[in-house]
Amino acid sequence: MRSVCVIGLGLIGGSVLRAAAAAGRTVWGATGSAADSDAAAADGYTVAAVADALKRAADEDALVVLAVPLPAVDQVLRQVADVAPHCLLTDVVSVKGPVADAVARHAPEARFAGGHPMAGTSASGWSASSTDLFRGAAWVVVADDDTEVAAWRAAADLAIDCGAHVVPVTADEHDAAVARISHLPHVLAAVLASCGADGGPLALALAAGSFGDGTRVMGSRPELVLAMCEGNRPALLGAVDDALGKLGAARGALASTGSLGATIRAGHSGRARLAELRAAGTTRVIVDLTDRDVIDELQSVGAQGGRVVAFEGDLAIAEIPAD
Amino acid sequence: MRSVCVIGLGLIGGSVLRAAAAAGRTVWGATGSAADSDAAAADGYTVAAVADALKRAADEDALVVLAVPLPAVDQVLRQVADVAPHCLLTDVVSVKGPVADAVARHAPEARFAGGHPMAGTSASGWSASSTDLFRGAAWVVVADDDTEVAAWRAAADLAIDCGAHVVPVTADEHDAAVARISHLPHVLAAVLASCGADGGPLALALAAGSFGDGTRVMGSRPELVLAMCEGNRPALLGAVDDALGKLGAARGALASTGSLGATIRAGHSGRARLAELRAAGTTRVIVDLTDRDVIDELQSVGAQGGRVVAFEGDLAIAEIPAD
Repeated sequence: MRSVCVIGLGLIGGSVLRAAAAAGRTVWGATGSAADSDAAAADGYTVAAVADALKRAADEDALVVLAVPLPAVDQVLRQVADVAPHCLLTDVVSVKGPVADAVARHAPEARFAGGHPMAGTSASGWSASSTDLFRGAAWVVVADDDTEVAAWRAAADLAIDCGAHVVPVTADEHDAAVARISHLPHVLAAVLASCGADGGPLALALAAGSFGDGTRVMGSRPELVLAMCEGNRPALLGAVDDALGKLGAARGALASTGSLGATIRAGHSGRARLAELRAAGTTRVIVDLTDRDVIDELQSVGAQGGRVVAFEGDLAIAEIPAD
Repeated sequence: MRSVCVIGLGLIGGSVLRAAAAAGRTVWGATGSAADSDAAAADGYTVAAVADALKRAADEDALVVLAVPLPAVDQVLRQVADVAPHCLLTDVVSVKGPVADAVARHAPEARFAGGHPMAGTSASGWSASSTDLFRGAAWVVVADDDTEVAAWRAAADLAIDCGAHVVPVTADEHDAAVARISHLPHVLAAVLASCGADGGPLALALAAGSFGDGTRVMGSRPELVLAMCEGNRPALLGAVDDALGKLGAARGALASTGSLGATIRAGHSGRARLAELRAAGTTRVIVDLTDRDVIDELQSVGAQGGRVVAFEGDLAIAEIPAD
């Protein structure tokens, strides 16, 4: 089993380190945060300086996992280029296009496949990390037309070892999708929380389930939300425009006809579609990773809402929702 | 203890019937739903035809609780005017201005104080009702300038007996507040669910906590959501306009400067304000219900985010959040 070097030991990086170790991998980490470094060392994990951790990764052909916030990616990549230029490399940052651009710019020799585990909590830091954070979660591993299959496989193996299933998609498809189902929810939650607070103490005293649910993610640290949303600016603009159009249409219908029927029924259908997809049976698909058009096949799995759940030799075992 | 007659035995009406009975009150109900009627009778509750239930309320000076959807209110009120024109009357409908208008139109002799318990689930019907639904919840009892104190007290006593605390506010203040913290959340959840579903199976396959939280209320029956939101049209239009303005400002800032800082920080503050108010200590205030300006005093309690938690004789014991 390939060793794993994790740079950044917050909630996600820390959980990767723990889960990979629990799966029997040799692991070590590095972080710029003294608090996270001390806490990880106190829990018995090997923590080194970033350059030393990367040097060891090069020596042992380990998989390097970038688990720092997007604004810190460039700096770590320059160290990768210095110390471990040809390493197997993935990341767990919440946008994939900008990270791919940064890798192409700073560490173009790295054997890179971007990643994004769709798991988290409103807490942060090593102290919030856990071995089980990714159990049952979706974990995107980017399959772009120029992705090296061995790099994709190395990142996907880690995701499976952490208890997740792997969703193979292009970086652009990923960024458009998460704009809709992760970043837009944060923007709408912020708008809702502001509108509620503007109603004064009476409005907040009456707030019950719908307001609590709709604003929950605003309990997260603003810096983390901002790094995530602002890092996906082009795709998020499209999603916000879609929401503005739909909200404006709801406004117009309510004002002119008194009806919100189209808005509420479409919302109900959308939520039902989510439940249906989760309850749907699946069709099993086998992707041979030695095929010439393996990237196309992987992209097709992801575009259909499917996922890779296991590997057997060079075969990826995928499940696709049945209609 | 005053007897209670509940018209409408769905989630809310059924829970009022159960909770009032559990508090030791004599209770009976009526409903146009054969399913709810059969289920309530099977659980041992007295269920009569609407006219018979109202006639008994007039004979025994019971409190009549309207627990039907807004579109059915007019019809029940005509029966009230026929059979029990001077009864003590409250309701549990989610908007208060339109119900007050309907009472003034159809049953002007009734001794009316509107109500709205801020509790519910996404389930509906008698089978979802429970004795404990209102325990710890806010329950608005309208204190308008023309509200008769005895009617307000009768409705507030019921709320306290059901385990709730009483928030006294004007109908207009109520409708403006719930537009922000209950109806707008449903509209934004509908918009979000549609935007997510428009992203296709990939987007829904990646949906995690923020999308699930932000769309949860779209699991409710569309008819109930529509009756609630459309019934509060004027106030909801104002809240939607506020949200459109804030979302448009976020869009503009993201497009022009790349920053969502103002949006996310305001949202974080709004959510924090909710948590602060819930954690805040309270100042105790006593309102003497025999005071000449008792309605003013009650309105002041509600406007400050306060609530009445008990009665002792003619004294209402209120708690107001301390700064």
